[in-house]
Formats: sequence, C-alpha cells, structure tokens
Amino acid sequence: MSQTGKFIVIEGLEGAGKSSAIERVNAWFETHFPGQSRVNTREPGGTPLAEEIREIWKRPRQEPMANLTELLMVYACRAQLVETVIKPALEQGKWVIGDRHNLSSLAYQGAGRGLTREVAGLSTITLGPFKPDLTLYLDIDPKAGLERARGRGELDRIELESLDFFERARQCYLEQAASDPSIRTIDASQPMEKVQQDIELALAEALL
Amino acid sequence: MSQTGKFIVIEGLEGAGKSSAIERVNAWFETHFPGQSRVNTREPGGTPLAEEIREIWKRPRQEPMANLTELLMVYACRAQLVETVIKPALEQGKWVIGDRHNLSSLAYQGAGRGLTREVAGLSTITLGPFKPDLTLYLDIDPKAGLERARGRGELDRIELESLDFFERARQCYLEQAASDPSIRTIDASQPMEKVQQDIELALAEALL
Repeated sequence: MSQTGKFIVIEGLEGAGKSSAIERVNAWFETHFPGQSRVNTREPGGTPLAEEIREIWKRPRQEPMANLTELLMVYACRAQLVETVIKPALEQGKWVIGDRHNLSSLAYQGAGRGLTREVAGLSTITLGPFKPDLTLYLDIDPKAGLERARGRGELDRIELESLDFFERARQCYLEQAASDPSIRTIDASQPMEKVQQDIELALAEALL
Repeated sequence: MSQTGKFIVIEGLEGAGKSSAIERVNAWFETHFPGQSRVNTREPGGTPLAEEIREIWKRPRQEPMANLTELLMVYACRAQLVETVIKPALEQGKWVIGDRHNLSSLAYQGAGRGLTREVAGLSTITLGPFKPDLTLYLDIDPKAGLERARGRGELDRIELESLDFFERARQCYLEQAASDPSIRTIDASQPMEKVQQDIELALAEALL
C-alpha cells in the first residue's frame, strides 16, 4: 500500500468528552477499516520528549509562565510530534487519530491569550501547509464542560483558567468550524449516545 | 534612578572562554559601577522553568530531536527569561549580563542547522525589536574550542555535534559581528591576560 494515511483530529474544550469520542473513533475504524494500522497521538505531547515538555507545561507553579513561553512550548511539542511521529506514520499509509492539534493553539493561546498573530506565525514556521484531513470539534458550553472536568479531580494549569478564557476559545473554535469545511462541529451537550451517532455520521460522510 | 539598565551579552562557541569572560565582566562592573545592581542570566535557561526546559534540551537521548523542536525550545526559554527576568530588571535600572542570547540561535540553529529563515521569524515573534546593548563575541577556532570543552568532561547534546556544524556557527558569528556595531569580536585564541584586556577595552569604549 503506497497510499498516504489520513490525519483525524478530535478537538474541544475541557470536559467536552474528547476521551469517549476518541474511543468511538477508534472503534469505528476497527469496524470499517479492519487491519488498517492506526496511531493515536495527543498534544501537547505524544513522544517521550514532548511528554516531558507537556509535564512542565501543565504543572501549576509559582513562577508565572509568560504567554509566549506557553505558546512556544506547545509548538516545540507539535514540531517534535509532527516530524517524528505523524508525518512518518502518514507516509507509511497509517491513519493518525489526534487528541488535539493546531486548532487548540488558535483557540487557547490565540483567542484565549490574545496571541492570534503569533499563533499564525508559528503555524507557518512549524507546519507550513500541513493540516488534518478531518477535525471533529466537540462543542460544549464552557461552564458545563468545566464542571465535568473539575469532577475528575486535581486541575492542571490550563483548567485553572477563567470562564472568560474558555468562552473566547469556544468562540474561536466555532468561527474556525464555520469557515473550514474540514472541521465538523458535534454538539457535545447531547446525550452520549446521540453524540456518538453524530461522530460516526461525520466519519462516514468524510471517509467512506 | 529611573534610567533603564543595559543588557550586555557574552557569546561564543564551546570552549571560547565565556565563563572566564563573564567573571571579568562582573569584576569590571564592580570596579566602574560600584553599587549598581546587576543580574546574571544564561541561555537557554535562567529561570526555574527555563532551566527545566534546558535540562531536557541538553540531555542526549535516543529519540532524535527534530531541528525545529530544538529551535522552538530555545525560544520558549528565551521568551520566559526576557519577559520575566531581563525586561523587568532593565526597567528597574539594573544591568543584565547574559551568557548567550539570540545571536546563539542565529549561529547554532540558523547557520548550524540550516534554519536561518525560521530563526528570523521566531526572533520577530518572541523579541520584536528587543536586543542587547552590547555583545562581546569571543572568537575561537572550533577545533581548539572543542578540545577545551571536551577536556571538561561529559559532553552534552550540542557539544556532540560535528566540527562542520561549529564552523558554520562561527562563520555566522563573524558575519553578524561584521555588520552590527553593537557586537565586538574578541580574539579568544590569545593568552588569557590579553583576552581580558580586550574585554575591558571593549566595555570601556562602549559604556564609559
């Protein structure tokens, strides 16, 4: 098989249900493309080196992290993951299922932190024209999402952000989804069964 | 004192004698500006967060580090140091003595790794027009410098690079010094006493 694989990304705010969605996407691939090699990634992270940076990045600390530092660390992780894992896998014809990718930076660091121009510059430097074939954006009201996320236990540095931060991030997700047909919006406030049906429908429409 | 401090940077290849030079610069300031507050920094690093990234960055590892990852990690450290240490210190009228800064990225990741365009983009995003008031570049033949550095013991990830890599970096340093009057070249192959005299002369010409 010399065909190139496809890169599918799951995006959404904290508590939107990304983990369940990813399980469902993996199950869908098992059913519809049995025997097709898949790689699951997550960002920031996904390689031993990038996971070390992720740990530093997520940990709440006394030293305030400059917004630009936060942004550059994410792109350091992304460069490592894309160059050493995602691109090689796609070139070998594997499918890659990503837990977050570049759109998270546009939403969180761009809209959330007010670094939209810097995100655009870093995207160009780090990724060039590389982008996912399909993004499933799980849309949820930040208040509801954060309640779910907070129910899971100790909060990381990002989860400690204000509601306003997540509102700006959501607005960005919705705007991007409205202008880019490769991003499908899934209403994640629905009952789980309906969310899963919508995910399968979006996958089928885009990939079958 | 509402006057802004000055940012002095010491640059040079491995084994050029940066540490001795920095000691001499500090001693010179003690003599000529007694009582003037100084901050010493090093890059990549210089804050607890940036030092954690530095440790990951320097450590040799099995996982090959993508060139872009290396570059983005350096700028993550630099953003943190400039935003949380260097700029606040300068605004308080302190002098900042830096062990490496942006010119190292241009030499090592730009010329050394072939990422000159990416370094230019990241400089603009991370630093804008911010730059040192004075840079002392300690020039040494890479072969001689590496011999000195290797005499110090175990080598880090950068020190393990090829001689060719360091030749390209040196060429870049020399070119930058030729075109930017704020960079003074010190011949670091001279006897230490002469090197120190040249450092003091450069400081006096630029700052007294």
